[in-house]
Amino acid sequence: MPRPMTIAEKILASHAGKEWVEPGELIEVDVDLALGNDITAPIAIRVFRETGVPRVFDREKIALVADHFVPNKDIKSAEQAKMLRDFAKEQGIVHHYDGGQMGIEHVLLPEKGLVLPGDVVIGADSHTCTYGALGAFATGVGSTDLAATWISGKTWFKVPETIRFVYHGQRRPWVTGKDLILHTIGDIGVDGALYKVMEFAGEAIRKLPMADRFSMSNMAIEAGGKAGLIEPDRITLNWVRRRAKRDFRVFKSDKKARYLEVRDYDVARIEPQVAFPHLPSNTKPISEVGRIDLDQVFIGSCTNGRLEDLAIAAKILKGRRVNSNLRLIIIPATPHVWSEALRRGYLRVFMEAGAVIGPPTCGPCLGGHMGILARGERALATTNRNFVGRMGHPESEVYLASPAVAAASAVLGYIASPEELGIKE
Amino acid sequence: MPRPMTIAEKILASHAGKEWVEPGELIEVDVDLALGNDITAPIAIRVFRETGVPRVFDREKIALVADHFVPNKDIKSAEQAKMLRDFAKEQGIVHHYDGGQMGIEHVLLPEKGLVLPGDVVIGADSHTCTYGALGAFATGVGSTDLAATWISGKTWFKVPETIRFVYHGQRRPWVTGKDLILHTIGDIGVDGALYKVMEFAGEAIRKLPMADRFSMSNMAIEAGGKAGLIEPDRITLNWVRRRAKRDFRVFKSDKKARYLEVRDYDVARIEPQVAFPHLPSNTKPISEVGRIDLDQVFIGSCTNGRLEDLAIAAKILKGRRVNSNLRLIIIPATPHVWSEALRRGYLRVFMEAGAVIGPPTCGPCLGGHMGILARGERALATTNRNFVGRMGHPESEVYLASPAVAAASAVLGYIASPEELGIKE
Repeated sequence: MPRPMTIAEKILASHAGKEWVEPGELIEVDVDLALGNDITAPIAIRVFRETGVPRVFDREKIALVADHFVPNKDIKSAEQAKMLRDFAKEQGIVHHYDGGQMGIEHVLLPEKGLVLPGDVVIGADSHTCTYGALGAFATGVGSTDLAATWISGKTWFKVPETIRFVYHGQRRPWVTGKDLILHTIGDIGVDGALYKVMEFAGEAIRKLPMADRFSMSNMAIEAGGKAGLIEPDRITLNWVRRRAKRDFRVFKSDKKARYLEVRDYDVARIEPQVAFPHLPSNTKPISEVGRIDLDQVFIGSCTNGRLEDLAIAAKILKGRRVNSNLRLIIIPATPHVWSEALRRGYLRVFMEAGAVIGPPTCGPCLGGHMGILARGERALATTNRNFVGRMGHPESEVYLASPAVAAASAVLGYIASPEELGIKE
Repeated sequence: MPRPMTIAEKILASHAGKEWVEPGELIEVDVDLALGNDITAPIAIRVFRETGVPRVFDREKIALVADHFVPNKDIKSAEQAKMLRDFAKEQGIVHHYDGGQMGIEHVLLPEKGLVLPGDVVIGADSHTCTYGALGAFATGVGSTDLAATWISGKTWFKVPETIRFVYHGQRRPWVTGKDLILHTIGDIGVDGALYKVMEFAGEAIRKLPMADRFSMSNMAIEAGGKAGLIEPDRITLNWVRRRAKRDFRVFKSDKKARYLEVRDYDVARIEPQVAFPHLPSNTKPISEVGRIDLDQVFIGSCTNGRLEDLAIAAKILKGRRVNSNLRLIIIPATPHVWSEALRRGYLRVFMEAGAVIGPPTCGPCLGGHMGILARGERALATTNRNFVGRMGHPESEVYLASPAVAAASAVLGYIASPEELGIKE
C-alpha cells in the first residue's frame, strides 16, 4: 500500500525514480530545467569550463536569462551578459534570453511554458521558488551546483519537511496574494520555514489568479522556505495549457500526507500588509502604518511585475497624478507583459500619471540599477526584500507592499491603501 | 551707420548692452538660461555654497535636469540626483526635471519653450550648442562658470569668429541633418571650427525640419565649435510659437557680415554618412562602408532621440524583426516624445520588432547605463561621439549614423542603408 505523501514529496520521488521519499532522506533527482542569470551563470560557466566537460547534458533543459543588470548598466554587466551569449552560442542553448527577448527570469520562464506542473527546477537565484505556484518543485541553488547539473542533469536534495498553510474565507478589498504571503511571513518570521516546503492551500488560494499565486510562492524563500508549492487546480491548468509545449504531470498532496505543521489563516481578517524596514517579516496591517512619506515607489520585479499587477496599478492611477514629491518607477517584467500593458492602455495611463516606465529588468529591486536610493531616501516597492541597503544606500529604507498599495501611495505621497482614494476594487 | 554683424555677434551684442561686438573682444553678457545636469550641477552646487551667497540670481533662469544617470543607476548617481532635488527645493528653482518629468536636457528645454531665438544660454554640458538650431547663442561651460552665473546672472565670452557653412541643392533619399553634419565634420575635422561659431545656412537647411536642425547644431562641438547657429525662419517660428511663454528676438546675419570662412556644400552629392571609430570626423559615405557586423544598435540621445527620429525608425522597423545577433535599444528623449511615440504606434512597432525601449535618459551614449558595451563589441549609435570607450569597454567600437541607417542596420545585422531593404523614403 502506498505511503501518503505531500505534493513536494511526490514530485521528488518521481524524479528520483523512487516510489516514495521521506523527509530527511538524501536523494538524487533528474532536473527538468536549470536556470542561470547574468549574475550567477558567469560563475557557473567558469566552473563548467574548469571541469573540461565539452557539452552540457541537454541544451533544451538549460535557461540563461540576462535580467539583473540589462540593458547593460556598466562594463562589468556587459561582460557578464556577453559571457551568457557566448556560452549559449557555443553550447547551442535553446532558451537564452537577451536584448529585446529578455524578461525577468521568474516571470519569463513560466510565460514561455518552460516550467510546468510536476517539474523539478533549480535556478541559481533564490526566487526560483516562484515556480511552486505551478505545482513544480523549484528551488534556488548556488552557481557551483548549477554547473554540476549542467553536466549531469541531476542534483541532490535532502527531502524537506512540509508545512501546510491553509487560507480560509473571503479576501477583503485590495487584499492580494502579496498581502497573504507578507502576513504569513510576518506571522512565522524570516526563518519560520527554514529548509521546509511551504504548501499554500485552502479556498482563498483556490480563488487566487495565477499572478497572485506566483507572488506567494516567490516569497517562500523570505521565510526560509526551500520551496513554496500550490497544488495545480483548474486555474493552474487553464494557465498552463495555453503555454505548455510538452507533457507534464499533476501531483497533489494526499489527504493523509504528513506535515510538520498545519497553520490556518482566516483571510477575512487580513488587511493589506506593509513590511517595514528591514525585514519582510516586519509587517503591519495598512491601518497601523501611520504616516510614512515616500521618495520613490517601484512597481515591478519577479514578485509583482505581472500584467495583473499592472492592471491594478492602472486602475488606481487612471486619471490621477503621481505625487510631485516622489518618483514612480514601473517596470513590466517581460516583453510580453510590456506589450500587453501597452495594448491595454496601461502604459498610457502610467505616462499620463507621470510615471517612469522601464524596460524589463530586475532593476532597482536588488539595488541593481534604474531606481537606486540615495542616503536617507525611503521607497515603497512591490518587491520581495527590504534588507538594509537592498535598493541602494545603507541608510535608505524599503517598505514592501502590493501593487494596489504602491499605486495609491504614489498618488498620495505616503503609504496608503486605495481605499483612502475612495477607489473600490 | 551700423556695422554688419553675424547672428552670433548680434545676439552677443544685445546681451552685452553694446551696439556691436567684434571677434576677439572680451564681453560680459546677460544669460537667459543656465543649465546643469546630474553630473555637472552637483559640482556647481558645491561651488555656489562655498561662496556663501544665499540665493541664485533668478530662480526662473536656471534649469536642473537629472538626465545622465536616471533612473538612478547606482548610489552615487542617486546622491547626485538628490543634490539637484534638494538644491531646487531650497532655492525654489522652477525648472527642475526629475522622475517622470525628466527628459534629455537638450531635447527637453526647447520642448518646454525654455530656450527661444535670440537667447544666450550656457549649460554645463558640451552639447548645449544644440539650441543654436533655434537661433540662440548657446554653449557649454564648466561647472564653476555655471555656479558664477547662478550668482551674477552673467557670464563672459571672447566673441568668436564665425564660419558659414552653406548647403545647396536637394538632399538624396535617407539623407538627414545628421548626415550633413557628419559630412561637415568629416570635411573640416574635429578641430575644424575650434572656438568658432558654425553658422549653418542655405536652401537645404531651410528645408530641414527642426529635429534635423537640432541634430546639426548639437554636433557643432564635435568640430570644436563654440556654437552652431541657424537663423530662425518660418519653420523655426512655427515651432517656437507653439511653445514660447515669453517674448523673444529674432536675429539674422547681415548680408555683409564678416566671416572667417564660407564653405559651400552640394547636398545632392552627400550620401548617408557613417563615422567610424574613434572620431566623429572619421566619416565614410554608406556606399564605402563595407560589411561591418554589429552587436548593438542604439537610437536615442540629444542628437537623435526626437519624435521625427523615431518616426523614421518606425517606418523602417514596421513589420520587420531586429536581427537576432544584436540588441536594438531605443530611448525616446523626453516623456513627451515617449508618449507621442506611444500614441502614434511607434512603440508598438519597436516592441513587435524586438527592440528594448528605455525611459528618457542619456543612457548608453556616454557609457552611462542602459546599453554599455563589453570588450570587443561593436555598436552603431545615433549619438554624437565615438571616442575610445565612449559607450563602454575601451576595446569596444562605436559607429555614428542617422536613425534611418541605424534602423536598417538593426534589421540586417550590419551597417546598411534603408535602400538595402528596398524601402523608399
